[in-house]
Amino acid sequence: MIKITLPDGSVREFDGAVTSMDVAKDISEGLARNVLAAKVNGEIWDLMRPINEDASVSLLTWNDDGGKSTMWHSSAHLLAEALEFFYPGIKLAIGPPIENGFYYDVDFGDYEFTEKDLKKVEDKMLELARQKNEYVRQEISKADAIKYYQEKDDEYKLELLEDLEDGNITFYTQGNFTDLCRGPHIPHTGYIKAVKLMSIAGAYWRGDETRQQLTRVYGITFPKAKELKEYLEMLEEAKKRDHRKLGKELGLFTFSQKVGMGLPLWLPKGTAVRDRLIDFMKEAQIKSGYSPVATPHIAHKDLYVCSGHYEKYGEDSFQAIKTPHEGEEFLLKPMNCPHHCEIFKAEPKSYKDLPVRFAEFGTVYRYEQSGELHGLTRVRGFTQDDAHIFCRPDQVEEEFKKVIDLVLYVFKALDFENFTAQVSLRDPNKAEKYIGSNENWEKAEAAIIKATEEKGLPTVIEYGEAAFYGPKLDFMVKDALGRSWQLGTIQVDYNLPERFELEYTGSDNQKHRPVMIHRAPFGSLERFIAVLIEHTSGKFPLWLNPDQYTILPISEKYNDYANEVLNLLKNYDIRGLVDDRNEKIGKKIRDAEVNKIPYMLIVGENEASENKVAVRRQGDGDLGVFTIEEFAGIINKEIDEKLIKFN
Amino acid sequence: MIKITLPDGSVREFDGAVTSMDVAKDISEGLARNVLAAKVNGEIWDLMRPINEDASVSLLTWNDDGGKSTMWHSSAHLLAEALEFFYPGIKLAIGPPIENGFYYDVDFGDYEFTEKDLKKVEDKMLELARQKNEYVRQEISKADAIKYYQEKDDEYKLELLEDLEDGNITFYTQGNFTDLCRGPHIPHTGYIKAVKLMSIAGAYWRGDETRQQLTRVYGITFPKAKELKEYLEMLEEAKKRDHRKLGKELGLFTFSQKVGMGLPLWLPKGTAVRDRLIDFMKEAQIKSGYSPVATPHIAHKDLYVCSGHYEKYGEDSFQAIKTPHEGEEFLLKPMNCPHHCEIFKAEPKSYKDLPVRFAEFGTVYRYEQSGELHGLTRVRGFTQDDAHIFCRPDQVEEEFKKVIDLVLYVFKALDFENFTAQVSLRDPNKAEKYIGSNENWEKAEAAIIKATEEKGLPTVIEYGEAAFYGPKLDFMVKDALGRSWQLGTIQVDYNLPERFELEYTGSDNQKHRPVMIHRAPFGSLERFIAVLIEHTSGKFPLWLNPDQYTILPISEKYNDYANEVLNLLKNYDIRGLVDDRNEKIGKKIRDAEVNKIPYMLIVGENEASENKVAVRRQGDGDLGVFTIEEFAGIINKEIDEKLIKFN
Repeated sequence: MIKITLPDGSVREFDGAVTSMDVAKDISEGLARNVLAAKVNGEIWDLMRPINEDASVSLLTWNDDGGKSTMWHSSAHLLAEALEFFYPGIKLAIGPPIENGFYYDVDFGDYEFTEKDLKKVEDKMLELARQKNEYVRQEISKADAIKYYQEKDDEYKLELLEDLEDGNITFYTQGNFTDLCRGPHIPHTGYIKAVKLMSIAGAYWRGDETRQQLTRVYGITFPKAKELKEYLEMLEEAKKRDHRKLGKELGLFTFSQKVGMGLPLWLPKGTAVRDRLIDFMKEAQIKSGYSPVATPHIAHKDLYVCSGHYEKYGEDSFQAIKTPHEGEEFLLKPMNCPHHCEIFKAEPKSYKDLPVRFAEFGTVYRYEQSGELHGLTRVRGFTQDDAHIFCRPDQVEEEFKKVIDLVLYVFKALDFENFTAQVSLRDPNKAEKYIGSNENWEKAEAAIIKATEEKGLPTVIEYGEAAFYGPKLDFMVKDALGRSWQLGTIQVDYNLPERFELEYTGSDNQKHRPVMIHRAPFGSLERFIAVLIEHTSGKFPLWLNPDQYTILPISEKYNDYANEVLNLLKNYDIRGLVDDRNEKIGKKIRDAEVNKIPYMLIVGENEASENKVAVRRQGDGDLGVFTIEEFAGIINKEIDEKLIKFN
Repeated sequence: MIKITLPDGSVREFDGAVTSMDVAKDISEGLARNVLAAKVNGEIWDLMRPINEDASVSLLTWNDDGGKSTMWHSSAHLLAEALEFFYPGIKLAIGPPIENGFYYDVDFGDYEFTEKDLKKVEDKMLELARQKNEYVRQEISKADAIKYYQEKDDEYKLELLEDLEDGNITFYTQGNFTDLCRGPHIPHTGYIKAVKLMSIAGAYWRGDETRQQLTRVYGITFPKAKELKEYLEMLEEAKKRDHRKLGKELGLFTFSQKVGMGLPLWLPKGTAVRDRLIDFMKEAQIKSGYSPVATPHIAHKDLYVCSGHYEKYGEDSFQAIKTPHEGEEFLLKPMNCPHHCEIFKAEPKSYKDLPVRFAEFGTVYRYEQSGELHGLTRVRGFTQDDAHIFCRPDQVEEEFKKVIDLVLYVFKALDFENFTAQVSLRDPNKAEKYIGSNENWEKAEAAIIKATEEKGLPTVIEYGEAAFYGPKLDFMVKDALGRSWQLGTIQVDYNLPERFELEYTGSDNQKHRPVMIHRAPFGSLERFIAVLIEHTSGKFPLWLNPDQYTILPISEKYNDYANEVLNLLKNYDIRGLVDDRNEKIGKKIRDAEVNKIPYMLIVGENEASENKVAVRRQGDGDLGVFTIEEFAGIINKEIDEKLIKFN
């Protein structure tokens, strides 16, 4: 009798050895058709691998990361089989699943392999998939495995084998292809219904640029043809929405060789978006009881030695700034928190003063290698909407709730509707690796969970994911293309108050350590704006758009009237411009659409004589002819509906 | 016949040699009584020194810097005479006039000299002054001068003599004291009517810390006793208003050893003032057609090599920031202008696009030796309200006028009523040392002068004071204590557009260089706030004050009502707080006065039952009892009257 415990806690009993596929069939035929692999006692296994004792089993489908990665791993083997068919004798290095699909690094020897060859390999993969060849697992001794690859003269697999222990080595075979592999794999190739080989690139063996250069072939597969189609459409759309492309087209930001890579220069329109986001957050924060503070972008090395950041980042980051005299050493600030700790210390605090909440749009600098830089999402200098709350342990829950309110307010105003809250707690079995008292941890963890429950957040709890210095809450947000972004972190910290010896006087007249909470709803403004550009394809919410309307005179004759309208509209707290170029009205409308300006006000003879404007809304077309005041009402109503004030 | 030309161009003729005193008497007896020295052909001379040929003469009184410095120089000799009386055999090093008074560096040998001895020396000086001893000028050969000081065994004067040329050496004698001195001096000691010896300090001979340490005695004198009294009162007041003292008392800013000297940390209240100044300027700038931009605080060394700043500041400033890989070198930005040049270059410009005006509250870092640091006026990092206007040469005048409007708006809103505009032009005799075409210089200089005239500014023109790269306009502002500060510079620049090869396409379809104008009405925010604190003694204008009102419940029983009032007042765009401490009302009022909170709202039984507040205005006392709405009206009216919107 073998007992299988399922994730919901239910138990199923089987007579003797059983496979995960048997468990799936026992539950439902539908599940059995969709299951790809299983997590057995926390480890992902082949569906057909026998389970010989009691176990907890979680069945993985395409909806699970583990299901996807198993199928993509199997797809890499399928790619290898197809490549060997066309190019016998090639050597296959490694072929793992990745975030979106898989790759295989191949030594093509004397063969020439280009992007033009991808199509025939794809076709071959589909042909082999239709054969429903089983992935067969075989345990093999190290000696036999070495012998096998010595015969094939495959130095790559032989080198991999060097690091493996005897008794722990497996081969997988499907059709005509055998690979050294830990698995797991899907039951057979028939699960793969759609294949796309995306690209090829160069890659060094083991990432070491002194060693052999290999050809990396990237691909992705799906269990349904429709899903591949959707994926390719999503990629196409993502390319159109690439923030680097839109950032240039809309004149939001630029980079300069002379200033340096990874250091964005915000152009006027981008600065308008950025400043508006800052003002929006600042207003909500002040209402929420935060005190803005301002600190320098450098500090003595001592400060970061005290905070521990120097030990952590020092070597790999921007190096110290020396002074011409007096032998001082300064560092570009990698974090705002040490500065805020010093502000906390500037004046003595009592329990009545807490919580204090110091907020700063603080620009921090961290070195990244040039190859890692990417538009605004990976930069060398960025501005955090940072704040640090210093509170008593009994205030943690209330403070978490207040921060959650702020984060939800941001998401609502910016149309991020799809998110989950991820709560990272201690590994309960390793309490010793965390700093801070057990009592405080328990209190804080309970407070975070209670706060997420009371705020009704869709929540995932991850044990063992907390930092050593405190539990945290992250918001994982899905953008319009279904991609996930981590935005909005709330992090408890027992470490810095200790290192900076922060204190407040309690009602017992004794000194106590405050709890510190780090939080940043946007995270990095640069990265947030990049996500926002791609999420909205540059069509920012009306309240945020750099230009909310453009006035389009149908000929130069009406430029004066257009400027009059512009001046009148300045009284309504909205932002616009006049397109007074000597261009056809059709061209002006098209350009306004390209520039993603929400409202177009077309003015000609009729409008000028009646003191009106013909209003066009991007996406909605003509709305009719209105007085200036009526138009101001329309636009301000739309803004107010979206941008509800924070309370 | 000798012709004397006066500053107004008029000419007076005299029969043979004449003294400046004769010229003064020839004009009026009153002038003759007040004149202290004279500028003869550009050089300051004794009043009694004979003029033997035609000359231009400008008579200097106490109202002229040259008049003051002459009297203070003579006062240093008087101090020396008094010291020799009490301490025969002392050696006198140098005794120059300074900004406020004079000093003498003295080698007291074995005498002990402390602050307690100052009074008797002062009295002696006054006694000697009353003797009206003449300052007698005597030309002497170098050999005789050396002999004189060898006899006195005075190594200091002997060393000074080494650097002097024979035929060019003079002694001055008054009473029993003779000094090696170039002069000039006042006619006799009787002009000195009030004496104050301020302090003593250590000073190295010739500022060289390897040489003899001397005792520096600081003093100041006045032609009227009343003026000394006023000066001492001003000093007392300045001490009370010291921004370092008030900054601490009002909780505006702090410094931290760990963060580093000269790097201010802005506390919540100081940040409120700072942010409000920024918002105030930002709003006015946007209305004035500026485009905010945002740039990083570091850049590749290349950028500053290109701009020329590296050559100028590199060695003496914060050293380069190296990267852990890739061998790059970054510098903390000493200036925002190079970044703005790169933004100008990001997109091609036509003559129709100009002017463009990039504004940024940019924080820059410049190394200062720790001994030079002083509160917020001399720091290592500061934020400029910086902007760069890129315009065509024909737009310079209009742009100057617009910037003048902005500066005047700032001065008005912040109660700086007393200022002059100082226009710095080329030295017309050294045209070769300036870059940029002669035509552009003439155009720009004429434009600046015309702009100051049309705006009706009190203006001083200084020839030869322009930077090599362009003429400029500075605003010299007098604070409430009569001290002068340089605020608000507008600087034309022909250099950076050249170095960055900036271009626009003209109406002739050819490439042209734009003119660049640097301008910063506040200059450095840090320094500006320091001046503002001292100018207002911390009583900021109502619109700027961190807290505009405080609600003072007469006992804890009325704390709830006080908080209700606070909540209601939040709807009126004004800022306040509740003092809910368990303190007597008298103490609460005193503390509110110390914290310079303009309005105090006192609430007790009557106010709570009638939904009213008893209003007290700092400086004005009780104003009466008002409804919440009425009070909001009072305070907003006061704000609106002061803070007229920029148009």
